[in-house]
Amino acid sequence: MAKKKSRKQPAAKAPMTYKDAGVDIDAGEAMVEGIRTLVEKTYSPRVVGALGGFAGLFSLDFDEDLLKRKYHDPILVSCCDGVGTKLKVAFRTGKLDTVGIDLVAMNVNDLICIGAEPLFFLDYVAVGRLDPERMRDIIAGISNGCVQSGCALLGGETAEMPDFYKTKEFDMAGFAVGVVERNKIINGSGVRAGDSIIALASDGLHSNGYGLARKVIFSKAKFKPSDTPAELEGQTVAQAMLAPTRIYVKAVRAVLAAYKRRNMVRAMAHITGGGLPGNLPRVLPDGLTARLKRSGWKPQGIFELIAKAGPVDQVEMFRVFNMGVGFVMVVSPYRASAVMNRLRKAHQRCWQIGKVVKGGPSIQWA
Amino acid sequence: MAKKKSRKQPAAKAPMTYKDAGVDIDAGEAMVEGIRTLVEKTYSPRVVGALGGFAGLFSLDFDEDLLKRKYHDPILVSCCDGVGTKLKVAFRTGKLDTVGIDLVAMNVNDLICIGAEPLFFLDYVAVGRLDPERMRDIIAGISNGCVQSGCALLGGETAEMPDFYKTKEFDMAGFAVGVVERNKIINGSGVRAGDSIIALASDGLHSNGYGLARKVIFSKAKFKPSDTPAELEGQTVAQAMLAPTRIYVKAVRAVLAAYKRRNMVRAMAHITGGGLPGNLPRVLPDGLTARLKRSGWKPQGIFELIAKAGPVDQVEMFRVFNMGVGFVMVVSPYRASAVMNRLRKAHQRCWQIGKVVKGGPSIQWA
Repeated sequence: MAKKKSRKQPAAKAPMTYKDAGVDIDAGEAMVEGIRTLVEKTYSPRVVGALGGFAGLFSLDFDEDLLKRKYHDPILVSCCDGVGTKLKVAFRTGKLDTVGIDLVAMNVNDLICIGAEPLFFLDYVAVGRLDPERMRDIIAGISNGCVQSGCALLGGETAEMPDFYKTKEFDMAGFAVGVVERNKIINGSGVRAGDSIIALASDGLHSNGYGLARKVIFSKAKFKPSDTPAELEGQTVAQAMLAPTRIYVKAVRAVLAAYKRRNMVRAMAHITGGGLPGNLPRVLPDGLTARLKRSGWKPQGIFELIAKAGPVDQVEMFRVFNMGVGFVMVVSPYRASAVMNRLRKAHQRCWQIGKVVKGGPSIQWA
Repeated sequence: MAKKKSRKQPAAKAPMTYKDAGVDIDAGEAMVEGIRTLVEKTYSPRVVGALGGFAGLFSLDFDEDLLKRKYHDPILVSCCDGVGTKLKVAFRTGKLDTVGIDLVAMNVNDLICIGAEPLFFLDYVAVGRLDPERMRDIIAGISNGCVQSGCALLGGETAEMPDFYKTKEFDMAGFAVGVVERNKIINGSGVRAGDSIIALASDGLHSNGYGLARKVIFSKAKFKPSDTPAELEGQTVAQAMLAPTRIYVKAVRAVLAAYKRRNMVRAMAHITGGGLPGNLPRVLPDGLTARLKRSGWKPQGIFELIAKAGPVDQVEMFRVFNMGVGFVMVVSPYRASAVMNRLRKAHQRCWQIGKVVKGGPSIQWA
């Protein structure tokens, strides 16, 4: 048991007499030891150490630079999400060390939409059969995602449930907690007609639409994971289907840090299931909507491949997939190019995708 | 979407073209509407309202009575747990409205071990097929558990994953956040030889050992859920197997509130998988262990039934099950009877089970 981790050894959920059950306590201990360094590299001085192991502890205050001074009236922000059936692609290819990035991304990208700073993350992984090496891969991805988003991996639970999951399969869920200054909560209330809508590039499918994507790619078009159709420009199908969900924390927080004055960034949306039409309108006030120019960008090849192989029409593609836009920022039109410069300095591709207009609730295509 | 809930409609994970996929968006909306009141009855003034829905918001401070004044140096505490294969008993009996209590209990009972006040809870429920009525039952249990433990149900995720779960089956994970004053963290460091060990009665199996329990009760002894073996004293097998995990928050916090001086309550342990031998030593300092007198109490009939029907020997029973003791408090011997009086006033059955002695790491039986 890592000293500050509430991750319990999977034996805690062990069925039968431990001997008869074939639950391997050694495997559980090997796993906990194997992931210790992965977990500890996510720690900051705000993780409170050396405690029993029933729960993870986290201080809002740094020892030196009191967070109290940074956050006058801190509001905790929390969310929960899973990865969905993208996991099936990981099972099929055996590549398990990136779905953890997806898991963290799906949560922290939600947190930052309201302007929060991610603080810590916990994971639940339920496996059919505990295999320390496979668990190590899974946790390596989660640890990677936590480092990318500045989150401490504060705890987790590994449950071995052979009655629920096949031997080599698993499900996972993640929980993230962040903090935001109350008077800096970004909730769309400052959005005005004429505001600029900035698209932040995705890294492909991210973690949504895999029911359709898998059906088209594997069942209908019968691609093998190692195939390299022309649309993927040298990538294999496996690489395109498993590309991790992009984590927008650093780029978005760089912008927020530069514009401390309230109301420069007026709304943000993480583009998940439902795509742009499903996620952008929900952060805009009633009576306003987004007018987007479709010609402004070209989605990645994987989207083209799915649309052709389905075939799936464009309206449906935009309803199910992010179509190359993983995150959207709505900003004052006078700051749009400055914001985009900051995003690019943070290595985030971006472009102005449209603007806010009167109307709604559906988005409009220019 | 309930105004403060990050619970996404399950369509967010929808596979295929939405129409073809048979994912029922109406069912998702019906579910969200159906659970709204269940969720809102867990809210306190600290839940921050009227926001977009990407995440749940929670203020450490009350409007009036600033938590800052109560917590000089707040430490956030977080943990994550599931219910394990007790869910299979719920599937078999069709009674789904109590496993949510188990889910909350497994988490908040861990939180309070270090002296924390539970603040909020989030759930992940992954289903084979979304059925609004069944989801309502599941969430009713979670809401009930949150009310019992003074937690706001701040958010959740419902994922419909027909490739992972059978139509009427599901898995669930929970995540709780609490807060504790830094200098009141209870971590066992104050434990001394001679301290009294107080057992808090369990309500039966709670949420551990179901691999063995189900095997013995259903596969070996072939009991039906409606059977009423003499050991259960009028309860059915289903009732005994589904009795919700007891939530110790109110009783334990009543004791902590009464003894504000540090170090009166010296260690606490939630007795889960591994039983007393697996959970009590881990909260005691090196060089000290627990000497328990086995004759001091009689475990519930369900334990007797399992031991007989297995047969399972007593050592194994104590390693797998809580054996009637769901929570343990280690207190100053001079306060033991006062603590027990307070627990009883909070309607918690309890008794002195033994004391702390030199030795370790295994517990000793007197």
